Amino acid sequence: MTEPRVVAILSPGDMGGAIGRVLREGGFDAVTCLEGRSELTRLRAKEAGIRDLPLDDLIAEADIVLSVLVPAEARSLAERVAASLGRTDARPVYVDCNAIAPETVREIEGIVRAAGAVFIDAGIIGSPPRPGGSTHFHCSGPDTSAFEALGRSGLNIRVVGPVIGQASGLKMVYAASTKGTTALWTELFVAARGLGLEEALLAELGPNNATARQQVHTIPTMPRRARRWIGEMEEIAKTFASLGLTPRMLEGAADMYRLVGATALGEQTSREPDPTLERVLATLASQAAASAAAEG
Amino acid sequence: MTEPRVVAILSPGDMGGAIGRVLREGGFDAVTCLEGRSELTRLRAKEAGIRDLPLDDLIAEADIVLSVLVPAEARSLAERVAASLGRTDARPVYVDCNAIAPETVREIEGIVRAAGAVFIDAGIIGSPPRPGGSTHFHCSGPDTSAFEALGRSGLNIRVVGPVIGQASGLKMVYAASTKGTTALWTELFVAARGLGLEEALLAELGPNNATARQQVHTIPTMPRRARRWIGEMEEIAKTFASLGLTPRMLEGAADMYRLVGATALGEQTSREPDPTLERVLATLASQAAASAAAEG
Repeated sequence: MTEPRVVAILSPGDMGGAIGRVLREGGFDAVTCLEGRSELTRLRAKEAGIRDLPLDDLIAEADIVLSVLVPAEARSLAERVAASLGRTDARPVYVDCNAIAPETVREIEGIVRAAGAVFIDAGIIGSPPRPGGSTHFHCSGPDTSAFEALGRSGLNIRVVGPVIGQASGLKMVYAASTKGTTALWTELFVAARGLGLEEALLAELGPNNATARQQVHTIPTMPRRARRWIGEMEEIAKTFASLGLTPRMLEGAADMYRLVGATALGEQTSREPDPTLERVLATLASQAAASAAAEG
Repeated sequence: MTEPRVVAILSPGDMGGAIGRVLREGGFDAVTCLEGRSELTRLRAKEAGIRDLPLDDLIAEADIVLSVLVPAEARSLAERVAASLGRTDARPVYVDCNAIAPETVREIEGIVRAAGAVFIDAGIIGSPPRPGGSTHFHCSGPDTSAFEALGRSGLNIRVVGPVIGQASGLKMVYAASTKGTTALWTELFVAARGLGLEEALLAELGPNNATARQQVHTIPTMPRRARRWIGEMEEIAKTFASLGLTPRMLEGAADMYRLVGATALGEQTSREPDPTLERVLATLASQAAASAAAEG
C-alpha cells in the first residue's frame, strides 16, 4: 500500500490525544470526529492540533483509522465506521488499538472486513506516548505495514506476529500483570486498613519487598484511571475463561476498580495531582465499610 | 500461668512437625495424636521426636495445644478437643495457628472457651521453622503469655495486639500479598503460554521487572503447597467480603490452586525436588485447555 498520510484517531482522549500530537509532530495529518465526545476531549484535540470532521468526511479523507477507546466502545465504533464505509468509496486501513480480548478483536475484525477494509490488531503498553518515550505499540495481522509506517513519527511500533489476536493477547496478559497486581494489592492494603493492621502489614512485608514498594508508589496513580480499567479487567477475564482458566481473579479486579470509580477518587483527571496513598486507602476502606453495612 | 512444659501439636505435618522439632530441641516435651493421620505425618512425628498419645491422654498431659492444620480442619479439631475437655479436668491453653479468617477464629474461640480453656489467636508467616530462621509466629488475644513462653525454644513469636482475630487478620492480608500474587502471575503466565505469547510477555516485562523475577522463582515452589492453599484463599475471600470488599480475586486464586491440585503437580511432597517453571506452565496450560474443551 501507499504510505499513510492522514491518520484518523477515534477518540482523542488521554491516550488518543497524545498519539495525535506525536503523529502531527512527526509530519502526519491527524483528524478526528468529536461528535458526542467530552469537553476535555475537545480541548485535548485542539491542543494536539487534531482536525475535527464529520464521520463520513473523516472516513473519506483518512488513510488509516486508529480506534483508541474504552473497551466497551470498541465494537460500536467499528459498527459506525463500517456503516460509513458503506456510504463512501474510501477504504482506510482500520486498526483496533483497544485493550480487548482476542475473541472481541476477532468479532470486530469480522465487522470491519465485511465492510471491505484491511484490519490490523494492535495493543498499547505504556502511558500516553511522547517521542522517544517507552510506550510500545504492538501489532499483529497478515499485513501490518500501514501501522508500522506510523513509526517514522517516533511511535515505538513492534510486530508480534501474523495473527489477529496476538497483539491484543499480549496486552491482556501484560495488563493482568500490572493492573491485576495493583487491584490485588489495593484490596489487601484496604483490608489491612479496615482491620487496623496496616502498620503491622508494612512491618511484616519489610522495607526490601520489591512488589510492596512498587505498589506503594503505583496505587496513588491508579484512581484517575480506575473507571477505564473496569472494562479492561473484564476483557482479561474473558481472555482467561476462553483458555479454560478462571475468570474470577480478573472479575474481582474489575470489582475493585468499580469500587474506586464509585468514590470521589474516580472523578480525578490527569490534569490534577494524584491523591496520597493515605487518602486512597482511607477513602476505599470507608466506601467498603459502607457497602458491608448496607449488605449486613 | 505457670510456664508450659508439654506442648501438643495437632497435627505434625510439614509445619507442625518442624515446630515440634524446634520445641523439642528447645527443651519442651512435644506430644501429638496421630489417629487418622497419614504415613508421612507419622514419619515426620517420629523423626521430630514427638510422642503419640490418644486424644484424652494428650489433653490431660498438655499445658498448651497448638492447632496447625489446613483451614478446613480447624473447626472440627476444636470441636474434638472441646469434647475431650468435657471428659477430663485438664484445661490446656488452646492456640489456633491456622490460616483462617478472623470470623472463623472467633467461631472457634467460642467453641474452645465454652469448654473452659483459654484461647489464643495465632498466625504463622513463613516456612516451617528452624531455630534462628525467619518464620514469624504472630499472636493476639487478651492473654498470650503461654504462647509467648514458647519463644525460649527459638521460635520467633510476636504479639500483634489484645484482640482475637488480629493475628489471623495479619496472616490473611499477608498471604493475599504472597499467595494471591503467585496465583495471579501463575494464571497470566499460563494464559501467555496458551496464547503462544510467553516469550513476547517475558520480553515486554523486561529483565528488571522485580515482581516478574520473583514470580519466575516462586511459581515452581507452589505446586506442592497448592492443595493446602485452596482453603486459605477461601478464608481470605471471606475476610475481604466481611469488610465490604470483593471476594472474587481470592476465590479466583482458590480456583487456580484447585487447577494445580488437580494435576500430577499437586501430588508432589516437600521431599521431592520442585518441578521446572517450564513443566508447571506446560502442565497447567494443557489442564486448562482440556477443561475449556470439555466446557466448549
